[in-house]
Amino acid sequence: MAPTYTMAGGKGPNSYSQHSTYQRALLEVAKEKISEAISTKLEINSASNRFNIADFGCSTGPNTFLAVQNIIDAVGQKYRKETQKNPDDNIEFQVLFNDHSNNDFNTLFQTLPPTKGYFVAGVPGSFFGRVLPRDSLHVGHCSYSLHWLSQIPKGIADPNSPAWNKDIHCTGFSEEVAEAYLDQFKIDMGSFLKARGEELVSGGLLFLLGSCVPDGVKMSETMKGMLLDHLGNCLNDVAKEGLINQEELDSFNFPIYPAHVAEFKSVIEDNGCFTIEAFEKISHANEEFPLDPEFLATSNKVTFGGVIESRFGKEAMERTNELYEKKCPEILPELANAKSGMQFFIMLRRN
Amino acid sequence: MAPTYTMAGGKGPNSYSQHSTYQRALLEVAKEKISEAISTKLEINSASNRFNIADFGCSTGPNTFLAVQNIIDAVGQKYRKETQKNPDDNIEFQVLFNDHSNNDFNTLFQTLPPTKGYFVAGVPGSFFGRVLPRDSLHVGHCSYSLHWLSQIPKGIADPNSPAWNKDIHCTGFSEEVAEAYLDQFKIDMGSFLKARGEELVSGGLLFLLGSCVPDGVKMSETMKGMLLDHLGNCLNDVAKEGLINQEELDSFNFPIYPAHVAEFKSVIEDNGCFTIEAFEKISHANEEFPLDPEFLATSNKVTFGGVIESRFGKEAMERTNELYEKKCPEILPELANAKSGMQFFIMLRRN
Repeated sequence: MAPTYTMAGGKGPNSYSQHSTYQRALLEVAKEKISEAISTKLEINSASNRFNIADFGCSTGPNTFLAVQNIIDAVGQKYRKETQKNPDDNIEFQVLFNDHSNNDFNTLFQTLPPTKGYFVAGVPGSFFGRVLPRDSLHVGHCSYSLHWLSQIPKGIADPNSPAWNKDIHCTGFSEEVAEAYLDQFKIDMGSFLKARGEELVSGGLLFLLGSCVPDGVKMSETMKGMLLDHLGNCLNDVAKEGLINQEELDSFNFPIYPAHVAEFKSVIEDNGCFTIEAFEKISHANEEFPLDPEFLATSNKVTFGGVIESRFGKEAMERTNELYEKKCPEILPELANAKSGMQFFIMLRRN
Repeated sequence: MAPTYTMAGGKGPNSYSQHSTYQRALLEVAKEKISEAISTKLEINSASNRFNIADFGCSTGPNTFLAVQNIIDAVGQKYRKETQKNPDDNIEFQVLFNDHSNNDFNTLFQTLPPTKGYFVAGVPGSFFGRVLPRDSLHVGHCSYSLHWLSQIPKGIADPNSPAWNKDIHCTGFSEEVAEAYLDQFKIDMGSFLKARGEELVSGGLLFLLGSCVPDGVKMSETMKGMLLDHLGNCLNDVAKEGLINQEELDSFNFPIYPAHVAEFKSVIEDNGCFTIEAFEKISHANEEFPLDPEFLATSNKVTFGGVIESRFGKEAMERTNELYEKKCPEILPELANAKSGMQFFIMLRRN
């Protein structure tokens, strides 16, 4: 069984659904790009009254509702313009919300927008494999999910391997480690594209949003990389205090890899099913995290707390987070001088 | 908002998933009937590689998995026979598991059969309305759900109405009460059929299984009716003990109505979208509940405990259940002489 990673469920103050404003800001900026893309690049089959949209890695909302509504509105506008008919009377939208089977779908279903104009289906399963029937999807969307790998790369957690990584993520400073992470990314992203290629109808669009790293920049030169290094340092402090076993920590890695632009493009080209219609850097107001220790600590907890807790226990997780916030001011000057990361907007068209 | 009723979630000893053996026995007997029906009545479009199956009122499993697998196996066999081709290589099945949005879909998704040969989607929403796109469904299934009404019938809970019901269900002995229940059943079953009529493709099949009452028999003359009367008596005892407010109890009703055969047929005919291919009484080993107080009490708790708890609190629910089991032996002779209820197997074909 591959490990799976889901965001903190429920609706409480420490839930993902309450702490996804950063991702939402990206969606707001992407909204216009998506509308324009649908207006110019999507071919609507006016003979069919059905239109299926999927959000891969939807988590528990509310961002996923915003994302799919953007798409539905854009498709409706285009339909109205092309056919002079009211889309509400003619198209039935079905939205497929996909995430791991241990995602909190109950919360997702119980917080659906009350006035939604679409049929809802929750689709459990890893998006690295097929989750939908062949040729059944018109528009796919995947936001802030593709940096999660399906598993810890080979050798990374093995002290006897040249790829052994004492850091908790791919900092970019060890060639062997970076290669192992990249190899896994190629496998996973390749699997993702293969599955989507089978699910999407010809001419269908796939929107990918998230974080990557500009070519030539190392992860730990960016703010997000520095914050992961900070988390690693705090985990080490907690190990010294005795709440975490040091050896276990030395073998601990997050299965995340924000790829470089060229790496991303190369996997898409290797797949061969898609035309890259757009691969852009997008900017938004919250482009880098605000330099506020409390915000950063909560963000960290919501995103990584679950994995840390399941590996090292609740007490260690809570202590780590306490240190994370307490020591955060020490790294603020470094964060302020970080190299820019990159938020990507990718639009692929199924050939 | 209409009230919604879901079975006890989770996987624990008091969960629905552990106490649905009775319903399962019915499914086992229905299996053969469904296979035969699919073999003789279903037209397979061999040009399409997609086949969609929905289970309406799926609850949390495992019965729903058994039910849909029966259907998939039967469709596969028919396909193989008609086309001489292997269905595994040619048909993609998608199974749509439908229930209220407060159903425990998390448990459903986490207990899916590991080797299932179909795509999974959970569809939240009341089956009294549309939950799937038009013409998107090939076979629908609904087992042990259609006796639940969408709401308490009009007047039933109002002490000033001629239809006021001091019993907790429709015993059949008051004409006004029975009429109010039947009116609500007609509305709900009508809505169910209208929605399914739009969702099913022409030629698609709808299998309905569950409990009804033979014409001429009153609910409280059957074992299930007697058990509900027993539950009502126990609730009254608990009210006398002070844990339940008597007035509240006098207005309390379960929104369930196992219709009479003629009533069921009449609603189907009024809808007009379907041909009744079968409307049969089916028999199985567990046709009537075993006369075992512990079994009966647990069954009662799993099915009705949630509604009682949400209305009168956990303590009252537990006390009621305690009395239910303790006093059960008193009614065993009566149960042993009950008139037969009826387990129905209905097959409808979309015109």
